[in-house]
Amino acid sequence: MGERPLPTNEAELALARAAAAHRHESLYSERAANIKQSAVRDVFEISLRPGLVSLAGGNPFLQSLPLEKIGGMAYRIITEDGLAALQYGGGQGTEELRAQICEVMAEEGITDARPENVVVTTGSQSAQDVACKVFCDPGDVVLCEDPTYVGALNTFEAHQIDVVPVAMDAHGLVPEELEARIAELQAAGRSVKFLYTIPNFNNPSGISLAPERRQRIVDICRDANILVLEDNPYGLLKFDGTPHPTLRAGNPEDVLYMGSFSKILAPGLRIGWALVPEHLLRRFYLASEAVTLCPPTFNQLLISAYLDEHDWRGQIATYRSLYAERCAAMLESLADFMPEGVEWTTPDGGFFVWVTLPEGIDTYPLLQPAIEAGVVFIPGAAFSPGDEPSNKLRLAFSAVATDKIREGVRRLAPVLERAVSAAR
Amino acid sequence: MGERPLPTNEAELALARAAAAHRHESLYSERAANIKQSAVRDVFEISLRPGLVSLAGGNPFLQSLPLEKIGGMAYRIITEDGLAALQYGGGQGTEELRAQICEVMAEEGITDARPENVVVTTGSQSAQDVACKVFCDPGDVVLCEDPTYVGALNTFEAHQIDVVPVAMDAHGLVPEELEARIAELQAAGRSVKFLYTIPNFNNPSGISLAPERRQRIVDICRDANILVLEDNPYGLLKFDGTPHPTLRAGNPEDVLYMGSFSKILAPGLRIGWALVPEHLLRRFYLASEAVTLCPPTFNQLLISAYLDEHDWRGQIATYRSLYAERCAAMLESLADFMPEGVEWTTPDGGFFVWVTLPEGIDTYPLLQPAIEAGVVFIPGAAFSPGDEPSNKLRLAFSAVATDKIREGVRRLAPVLERAVSAAR
Repeated sequence: MGERPLPTNEAELALARAAAAHRHESLYSERAANIKQSAVRDVFEISLRPGLVSLAGGNPFLQSLPLEKIGGMAYRIITEDGLAALQYGGGQGTEELRAQICEVMAEEGITDARPENVVVTTGSQSAQDVACKVFCDPGDVVLCEDPTYVGALNTFEAHQIDVVPVAMDAHGLVPEELEARIAELQAAGRSVKFLYTIPNFNNPSGISLAPERRQRIVDICRDANILVLEDNPYGLLKFDGTPHPTLRAGNPEDVLYMGSFSKILAPGLRIGWALVPEHLLRRFYLASEAVTLCPPTFNQLLISAYLDEHDWRGQIATYRSLYAERCAAMLESLADFMPEGVEWTTPDGGFFVWVTLPEGIDTYPLLQPAIEAGVVFIPGAAFSPGDEPSNKLRLAFSAVATDKIREGVRRLAPVLERAVSAAR
Repeated sequence: MGERPLPTNEAELALARAAAAHRHESLYSERAANIKQSAVRDVFEISLRPGLVSLAGGNPFLQSLPLEKIGGMAYRIITEDGLAALQYGGGQGTEELRAQICEVMAEEGITDARPENVVVTTGSQSAQDVACKVFCDPGDVVLCEDPTYVGALNTFEAHQIDVVPVAMDAHGLVPEELEARIAELQAAGRSVKFLYTIPNFNNPSGISLAPERRQRIVDICRDANILVLEDNPYGLLKFDGTPHPTLRAGNPEDVLYMGSFSKILAPGLRIGWALVPEHLLRRFYLASEAVTLCPPTFNQLLISAYLDEHDWRGQIATYRSLYAERCAAMLESLADFMPEGVEWTTPDGGFFVWVTLPEGIDTYPLLQPAIEAGVVFIPGAAFSPGDEPSNKLRLAFSAVATDKIREGVRRLAPVLERAVSAAR
């Protein structure tokens, strides 16, 4: 080693770096150009400043978890079963956890799921990535709700997918709009691979797809030979405790369902899953294995112990009433403080309220004044492909105490008021 | 829901599935066709049969880990810091762990790594996947050692990469061969993106790249404007405790280095990392985030506690002497039992011995008789792209006690002997 002398000072080092950067520019994949930093990331970092009320991050509230009990489980798993827990495991996930995941899905109305069709993934984010791998070539089209989850958009963009948003109204995705988009795209010879949808308490809008639209959405996709990717991380967090029926329940061949322990237990364990139609399972599973080899064994055993030994249904009920209370506080605060011309959704579950300002107002430039006023939100533009301005913004109530929610909305109100007045 | 009646019996269900499978065939990506089940997977499943001696799996031996202590750390982290440990974390990994990873890499001779340039990943498998995302378009070329890690081959194939193996000899990758392959490929107008290399105790061959070849390999790649992906999971497991110099050490701009806690601590935590040249960092990091959002927080905190509170260097020393002893047992058994005409490598670290049979013998058909004789290995064909037969096989000594290693080799000998005799 070391025939070639290393740069000896900062200037030489900088020069070597610049030269390497220039040389290596040609090595990037085409898709690398599509990998961008989302505006949301900056906001999350800002959110950590003391004194700010962050209505930005969709973090679950973990304070009510039985930490003593979970800690004890972790201790026991490592001391009694550490040789398995710390070792490589099967690429599809442990049999025990996959069976338990079927029980969780049964709570959401999916009663015919078999553990063999479950693939455990590194959060459901990774399941989205694997689905893109398996189904999408560059230039293929994926449909999604407008607005939709920013992390999914990042994944789609990283796969050079052409993301076509479909309009929602207060009852969710509009079937006629979906039909129209598909017809246009297919008439233009485009290859539409799947509809990515969050039918329950959509992130960011908080809107749920109306019951009467649900089968219709699947039927439209089936008739056009388009898969449905149903992302349902918040499904069990309907405030009244009666989950919306899933799209997957009646459509085992046409819906690839994604679930997650991030919202009902702990995102820091990064365990999600996909329930994959039998005929698509093998390739999905092998693609998942090629990404991570296997999901973390220890985390799977810990979740298995939690599901086995703790009243997880009761825990979800606790979360539900907590989030219901926080949502109510946010809605009440919005009613109390928001200026005329501002509207918002009334979610029946989940983490988010979606605020709409009068047309023509871009919420992105309002972020800085909001931060100065001591509150953070996510501008609506983050949740659509493309860079068009948006007159919407997302408020998350999940991780903030009710009094802080009120204070945050109170701080936000004059910022929006000034924008609304200026736009008149 | 449910206007459309669900299939009511098995026959109807099977019919619906077959129809869906037919309809959806057109939805697969081009790369999905490249996602195959590796022969290795079947072998791993067979390995679990009782009574068999498995020399197949490259699992680390975890019995010597301080499980009581690690269990205590897990308990403490969840009970005292659970709200952070179980929550989302930064996409690049925790600052504490990235700083500690720099200390681990310092043990391998990388003394200029900065935590800002470390990206924590879901095992180093995920780092390979992200590298493919960032650098490779379908049809691009990646060079690798022949033979190389089967998991990397799966990842490359899933990305529709044209994998071109470069010959090794007893001293590792042959520089002249590397030069020749690059010259041919570039003359043919091919886009060669990186060399994937495991310079230390290569999986599966156990061969280490000779010191005098190391800088030359990097220089060849630099001159041809090809990145080096250095995969070094076994780096600290050199039997004599004096790690080989890494390719990265003297070449911070040209080598993307990948490390892992899977072999020096616990694969079941699925934590690896990439040390990324400054000028490539941003896209690498964002692509990693798009796959998994963030690495599991709890696992990172647990590894941080382990590195902080346990004599991890001493633990590695324990592993080193254990693996050295097992390797010695395997080499001695091979010398005692193997028929004439069979050769093998003499590794100076790592997990594997690579056995070569006389030319013309395919080791794949020997697997079944070996299993019947009570021993499992991995046929050499698994470790090269393409499906050509191979006269090599991999034996792993890492997870098996010395007496079992001897018994396994003793069982394998007559199987190979018959093949060698038949081929004469």
